Amino acid sequence: MSVPRDDFRSAMARLGAAVNVVTTDGRAGRRGLTASAVCSVTDAPPTVLVCVRRASRTHPVIEANGVFCVNVLAASHAALADRFATSGKDAEIGFSTTGSWTTLRSGSPVLTDASVAVDCEVIGSHRCGSHDVFFGRVLEVRLNASAQGLIYFQRTYVPLGVNN
Amino acid sequence: MSVPRDDFRSAMARLGAAVNVVTTDGRAGRRGLTASAVCSVTDAPPTVLVCVRRASRTHPVIEANGVFCVNVLAASHAALADRFATSGKDAEIGFSTTGSWTTLRSGSPVLTDASVAVDCEVIGSHRCGSHDVFFGRVLEVRLNASAQGLIYFQRTYVPLGVNN
Repeated sequence: MSVPRDDFRSAMARLGAAVNVVTTDGRAGRRGLTASAVCSVTDAPPTVLVCVRRASRTHPVIEANGVFCVNVLAASHAALADRFATSGKDAEIGFSTTGSWTTLRSGSPVLTDASVAVDCEVIGSHRCGSHDVFFGRVLEVRLNASAQGLIYFQRTYVPLGVNN
Repeated sequence: MSVPRDDFRSAMARLGAAVNVVTTDGRAGRRGLTASAVCSVTDAPPTVLVCVRRASRTHPVIEANGVFCVNVLAASHAALADRFATSGKDAEIGFSTTGSWTTLRSGSPVLTDASVAVDCEVIGSHRCGSHDVFFGRVLEVRLNASAQGLIYFQRTYVPLGVNN
Protein backbone atom coordinates (compact mmCIF):
# COMPACT_ATOMS: atom_id res chain seq x y z
CA MET A 1 0.00 0.00 0.00
CA SER A 2 1.41 3.35 -0.98
CA VAL A 3 0.51 6.70 0.51
CA PRO A 4 -2.68 8.55 -0.59
CA ARG A 5 -2.11 10.72 -3.64
CA ASP A 6 -2.98 14.01 -1.91
CA ASP A 7 -0.52 13.30 0.90
CA PHE A 8 2.15 12.55 -1.70
CA ARG A 9 1.44 15.82 -3.51
CA SER A 10 1.68 17.81 -0.26
CA ALA A 11 5.01 16.11 0.44
CA MET A 12 6.39 16.81 -3.04
CA ALA A 13 5.40 20.49 -2.71
CA ARG A 14 8.15 20.66 -0.05
CA LEU A 15 10.77 19.25 -2.45
CA GLY A 16 11.88 22.53 -4.02
CA ALA A 17 13.10 22.18 -7.59
CA ALA A 18 14.32 24.32 -10.47
CA VAL A 19 11.70 25.21 -13.08
CA ASN A 20 12.65 24.24 -16.62
CA VAL A 21 11.18 24.28 -20.10
CA VAL A 22 12.15 21.02 -21.79
CA THR A 23 12.08 21.38 -25.58
CA THR A 24 12.64 19.15 -28.60
CA ASP A 25 12.78 19.56 -32.37
CA GLY A 26 13.32 17.12 -35.21
CA ARG A 27 11.43 14.95 -37.66
CA ALA A 28 8.45 14.60 -35.26
CA GLY A 29 8.17 18.37 -34.86
CA ARG A 30 8.86 21.01 -32.25
CA ARG A 31 7.37 20.98 -28.75
CA GLY A 32 8.09 22.09 -25.21
CA LEU A 33 6.74 21.62 -21.71
CA THR A 34 7.42 22.99 -18.24
CA ALA A 35 8.99 20.44 -15.92
CA SER A 36 10.52 20.44 -12.46
CA ALA A 37 11.30 16.70 -12.37
CA VAL A 38 14.76 17.09 -13.86
CA CYS A 39 18.03 16.15 -12.23
CA SER A 40 21.70 15.55 -12.73
CA VAL A 41 22.49 11.82 -12.80
CA THR A 42 26.25 11.55 -13.25
CA ASP A 43 29.20 13.45 -14.68
CA ALA A 44 30.84 10.24 -15.89
CA PRO A 45 29.67 10.71 -18.59
CA PRO A 46 27.61 13.93 -18.24
CA THR A 47 23.97 12.83 -18.07
CA VAL A 48 20.68 14.30 -16.87
CA LEU A 49 17.20 12.84 -16.53
CA VAL A 50 13.75 14.24 -17.19
CA CYS A 51 10.44 12.66 -16.07
CA VAL A 52 7.68 13.07 -18.67
CA ARG A 53 4.07 11.88 -18.48
CA ARG A 54 3.45 9.39 -21.27
CA ALA A 55 0.03 10.92 -21.98
CA SER A 56 1.56 14.37 -22.61
CA ARG A 57 1.80 15.63 -26.20
CA THR A 58 5.52 16.22 -25.79
CA HIS A 59 6.38 12.65 -24.77
CA PRO A 60 6.08 10.97 -28.21
CA VAL A 61 7.87 13.89 -29.84
CA ILE A 62 10.91 13.60 -27.56
CA GLU A 63 10.87 9.85 -28.12
CA ALA A 64 10.77 10.19 -31.92
CA ASN A 65 13.26 13.06 -32.16
CA GLY A 66 15.73 11.42 -29.78
CA VAL A 67 16.88 14.80 -28.45
CA PHE A 68 15.84 17.40 -25.89
CA CYS A 69 17.09 20.58 -24.28
CA VAL A 70 16.58 21.49 -20.62
CA ASN A 71 16.20 25.27 -20.41
CA VAL A 72 16.73 26.10 -16.74
CA LEU A 73 14.62 29.20 -16.13
CA ALA A 74 15.80 32.45 -14.57
CA ALA A 75 13.92 34.52 -11.98
CA SER A 76 12.19 36.58 -14.70
CA HIS A 77 10.60 33.57 -16.43
CA ALA A 78 7.49 32.79 -14.36
CA ALA A 79 5.11 33.82 -17.17
CA LEU A 80 7.00 31.69 -19.67
CA ALA A 81 6.83 28.72 -17.29
CA ASP A 82 3.06 29.16 -17.09
CA ARG A 83 2.82 29.38 -20.87
CA PHE A 84 4.53 26.04 -21.41
CA ALA A 85 2.75 24.41 -18.48
CA THR A 86 -0.64 25.02 -20.10
CA SER A 87 0.16 25.06 -23.81
CA GLY A 88 -1.62 21.77 -24.62
CA LYS A 89 -1.85 21.32 -28.36
CA ASP A 90 -0.69 24.85 -29.05
CA ALA A 91 2.89 24.60 -27.82
CA GLU A 92 4.03 26.09 -31.12
CA ILE A 93 2.38 29.34 -30.06
CA GLY A 94 4.63 29.33 -26.99
CA PHE A 95 7.71 29.44 -29.20
CA SER A 96 6.35 32.13 -31.50
CA THR A 97 4.95 34.44 -28.83
CA THR A 98 7.17 33.94 -25.79
CA GLY A 99 10.91 34.25 -25.40
CA SER A 100 13.77 34.41 -27.88
CA TRP A 101 15.00 31.05 -29.19
CA THR A 102 18.13 29.67 -30.80
CA THR A 103 19.63 26.15 -31.10
CA LEU A 104 22.71 24.21 -30.07
CA ARG A 105 23.95 20.85 -31.40
CA SER A 106 20.76 18.82 -30.95
CA GLY A 107 18.61 21.35 -32.79
CA SER A 108 16.16 21.61 -29.87
CA PRO A 109 14.90 25.09 -29.01
CA VAL A 110 17.24 26.97 -26.66
CA LEU A 111 15.87 29.92 -24.71
CA THR A 112 18.49 32.62 -25.24
CA ASP A 113 18.15 34.05 -21.72
CA ALA A 114 17.76 30.76 -19.83
CA SER A 115 19.96 30.59 -16.75
CA VAL A 116 21.56 27.62 -18.49
CA ALA A 117 20.56 25.46 -21.45
CA VAL A 118 21.52 21.78 -21.30
CA ASP A 119 21.37 20.24 -24.77
CA CYS A 120 20.95 16.45 -24.81
CA GLU A 121 20.70 13.30 -26.86
CA VAL A 122 18.38 10.60 -25.47
CA ILE A 123 20.42 7.53 -24.49
CA GLY A 124 17.70 5.52 -22.75
CA SER A 125 14.46 5.58 -20.84
CA HIS A 126 12.82 3.84 -17.91
CA ARG A 127 9.05 3.36 -17.58
CA CYS A 128 7.57 4.11 -14.16
CA GLY A 129 3.80 4.25 -13.63
CA SER A 130 2.26 7.02 -15.72
CA HIS A 131 5.64 8.50 -16.63
CA ASP A 132 8.83 7.70 -18.53
CA VAL A 133 12.21 8.86 -17.31
CA PHE A 134 14.33 9.97 -20.29
CA PHE A 135 18.10 9.88 -19.81
CA GLY A 136 20.02 12.46 -21.83
CA ARG A 137 23.73 12.54 -22.63
CA VAL A 138 24.76 16.18 -22.47
CA LEU A 139 26.11 17.37 -25.82
CA GLU A 140 26.56 21.05 -25.05
CA VAL A 141 25.71 23.65 -22.41
CA ARG A 142 25.16 27.39 -22.67
CA LEU A 143 25.40 29.52 -19.52
CA ASN A 144 24.13 33.05 -19.19
CA ALA A 145 26.03 35.62 -17.18
CA SER A 146 23.28 36.04 -14.59
CA ALA A 147 22.89 33.22 -12.10
CA GLN A 148 19.44 34.00 -10.78
CA GLY A 149 17.18 30.97 -10.62
CA LEU A 150 13.49 30.13 -10.32
CA ILE A 151 12.36 27.44 -7.88
CA TYR A 152 8.97 25.75 -7.65
CA PHE A 153 8.26 25.33 -3.93
CA GLN A 154 4.99 25.04 -2.02
CA ARG A 155 3.09 25.31 -5.32
CA THR A 156 4.51 28.72 -6.18
CA TYR A 157 7.48 30.18 -8.04
CA VAL A 158 10.22 31.57 -5.83
CA PRO A 159 13.03 33.64 -7.41
CA LEU A 160 16.42 32.54 -6.16
CA GLY A 161 19.76 34.28 -6.03
CA VAL A 162 22.89 33.41 -4.11
CA ASN A 163 22.32 36.56 -2.06
CA ASN A 164 18.81 35.53 -0.92
CA MET B 1 31.02 13.52 -27.82
CA SER B 2 29.55 14.87 -24.62
CA VAL B 3 30.38 18.17 -22.97
CA PRO B 4 33.54 18.55 -20.83
CA ARG B 5 32.93 17.56 -17.21
CA ASP B 6 33.73 21.00 -15.77
CA ASP B 7 31.25 22.68 -18.12
CA PHE B 8 28.63 20.13 -17.06
CA ARG B 9 29.30 20.82 -13.39
CA SER B 10 28.97 24.58 -13.91
CA ALA B 11 25.68 23.98 -15.69
CA MET B 12 24.33 21.72 -12.96
CA ALA B 13 25.23 24.32 -10.32
CA ARG B 14 22.46 26.44 -11.89
CA LEU B 15 19.89 23.64 -11.49
CA GLY B 16 18.71 24.49 -7.97
CA ALA B 17 17.54 21.48 -5.99
CA ALA B 18 16.31 20.58 -2.53
CA VAL B 19 18.92 19.18 -0.15
CA ASN B 20 18.03 15.78 1.32
CA VAL B 21 19.54 13.17 3.58
CA VAL B 22 18.65 9.77 2.13
CA THR B 23 18.74 7.08 4.79
CA THR B 24 18.26 3.32 4.99
CA ASP B 25 18.14 0.67 7.69
CA GLY B 26 17.69 -3.09 7.59
CA ARG B 27 19.62 -6.34 7.47
CA ALA B 28 22.60 -4.64 5.73
CA GLY B 29 22.80 -1.94 8.40
CA ARG B 30 22.03 1.74 8.76
CA ARG B 31 23.46 4.44 6.53
CA GLY B 32 22.73 7.87 5.14
CA LEU B 33 24.03 10.32 2.57
CA THR B 34 23.30 13.85 1.44
CA ALA B 35 21.75 14.00 -2.02
CA SER B 36 20.19 16.64 -4.21
CA ALA B 37 19.49 14.34 -7.17
CA VAL B 38 16.04 13.36 -5.95
CA CYS B 39 12.78 13.96 -7.74
CA SER B 40 9.12 13.15 -7.92
CA VAL B 41 8.40 10.69 -10.76
CA THR B 42 4.65 10.10 -10.73
CA ASP B 43 1.67 10.17 -8.38
CA ALA B 44 0.13 7.14 -10.11
CA PRO B 45 1.30 5.38 -8.03
CA PRO B 46 3.29 7.73 -5.73
CA THR B 47 6.96 7.25 -6.67
CA VAL B 48 10.21 9.16 -6.26
CA LEU B 49 13.70 8.56 -7.57
CA VAL B 50 17.14 9.02 -6.03
CA CYS B 51 20.45 8.94 -7.94
CA VAL B 52 23.23 7.24 -5.96
CA ARG B 53 26.86 6.69 -6.95
CA ARG B 54 27.55 2.97 -7.12
CA ALA B 55 30.95 3.46 -5.46
CA SER B 56 29.37 5.12 -2.41
CA ARG B 57 29.13 3.17 0.84
CA THR B 58 25.40 3.77 1.02
CA HIS B 59 24.59 2.27 -2.40
CA PRO B 60 24.95 -1.43 -1.53
CA VAL B 61 23.13 -0.89 1.75
CA ILE B 62 20.07 0.63 0.05
CA GLU B 63 20.20 -2.18 -2.50
CA ALA B 64 20.32 -4.89 0.17
CA ASN B 65 17.78 -3.31 2.54
CA GLY B 66 15.33 -2.54 -0.28
CA VAL B 67 14.09 0.59 1.50
CA PHE B 68 15.07 4.23 1.90
CA CYS B 69 13.73 7.48 3.33
CA VAL B 70 14.19 10.89 1.71
CA ASN B 71 14.50 13.45 4.50
CA VAL B 72 13.93 16.81 2.82
CA LEU B 73 15.98 19.29 4.83
CA ALA B 74 14.72 22.51 6.36
CA ALA B 75 16.52 25.86 6.34
CA SER B 76 18.25 25.12 9.66
CA HIS B 77 19.89 21.88 8.45
CA ALA B 78 22.99 23.05 6.55
CA ALA B 79 25.39 21.57 9.13
CA LEU B 80 23.56 18.25 9.08
CA ALA B 81 23.77 18.23 5.27
CA ASP B 82 27.52 18.74 5.51
CA ARG B 83 27.80 15.95 8.08
CA PHE B 84 26.16 13.38 5.81
CA ALA B 85 27.94 14.67 2.71
CA THR B 86 31.32 13.84 4.22
CA SER B 87 30.57 11.00 6.61
CA GLY B 88 32.43 8.30 4.62
CA LYS B 89 32.71 5.15 6.66
CA ASP B 90 31.48 6.87 9.81
CA ALA B 91 27.89 7.58 8.80
CA GLU B 92 26.78 5.93 12.03
CA ILE B 93 28.33 8.84 13.89
CA GLY B 94 26.06 11.16 11.91
CA PHE B 95 23.01 9.46 13.36
CA SER B 96 24.32 9.41 16.90
CA THR B 97 25.67 12.96 17.02
CA THR B 98 23.42 14.96 14.69
CA GLY B 99 19.67 15.40 14.67
CA SER B 100 16.85 13.52 16.32
CA TRP B 101 15.69 10.35 14.56
CA THR B 102 12.59 8.18 14.47
CA THR B 103 11.16 5.69 11.93
CA LEU B 104 8.10 5.18 9.75
CA ARG B 105 6.93 2.00 8.00
CA SER B 106 10.15 1.14 6.16
CA GLY B 107 12.28 1.36 9.31
CA SER B 108 14.70 3.81 7.67
CA PRO B 109 15.89 6.71 9.83
CA VAL B 110 13.50 9.67 9.76
CA LEU B 111 14.79 13.08 10.84
CA THR B 112 12.13 14.33 13.23
CA ASP B 113 12.40 17.97 12.12
CA ALA B 114 12.84 17.36 8.38
CA SER B 115 10.61 19.60 6.27
CA VAL B 116 9.09 16.34 5.07
CA ALA B 117 10.16 12.69 5.27
CA VAL B 118 9.26 10.45 2.32
CA ASP B 119 9.47 6.78 3.33
CA CYS B 120 9.97 4.37 0.42
CA GLU B 121 10.30 0.78 -0.70
CA VAL B 122 12.67 0.20 -3.66
CA ILE B 123 10.67 -1.01 -6.67
CA GLY B 124 13.40 -0.89 -9.30
CA SER B 125 16.64 0.69 -10.43
CA HIS B 126 18.28 1.88 -13.63
CA ARG B 127 22.04 1.90 -14.18
CA CYS B 128 23.49 5.05 -15.74
CA GLY B 129 27.25 5.62 -15.95
CA SER B 130 28.76 5.79 -12.46
CA HIS B 131 25.34 5.96 -10.77
CA ASP B 132 22.19 3.92 -10.22
CA VAL B 133 18.79 5.53 -10.12
CA PHE B 134 16.67 3.90 -7.39
CA PHE B 135 12.90 4.13 -7.79
CA GLY B 136 10.95 4.18 -4.53
CA ARG B 137 7.25 3.52 -4.02
CA VAL B 138 6.16 5.93 -1.29
CA LEU B 139 4.80 4.07 1.73
CA GLU B 140 4.27 7.00 4.07
CA VAL B 141 5.05 10.70 4.43
CA ARG B 142 5.53 12.88 7.48
CA LEU B 143 5.23 16.67 7.14
CA ASN B 144 6.41 19.18 9.67
CA ALA B 145 4.46 22.34 10.37
CA SER B 146 7.19 24.65 9.09
CA ALA B 147 7.59 24.77 5.34
CA GLN B 148 11.02 26.37 5.12
CA GLY B 149 13.33 24.64 2.67
CA LEU B 150 17.03 24.38 1.88
CA ILE B 151 18.18 24.59 -1.73
CA TYR B 152 21.61 23.76 -3.16
CA PHE B 153 22.29 26.39 -5.83
CA GLN B 154 25.52 27.76 -7.24
CA ARG B 155 27.47 25.41 -4.93
CA THR B 156 26.01 26.86 -1.76
CA TYR B 157 23.02 26.29 0.53
CA VAL B 158 20.22 28.83 0.19
CA PRO B 159 17.40 28.88 2.77
CA LEU B 160 14.01 29.08 1.10
CA GLY B 161 10.63 30.21 2.32
CA VAL B 162 7.52 31.10 0.37
CA ASN B 163 8.04 34.70 1.54
CA ASN B 164 11.55 34.97 0.04
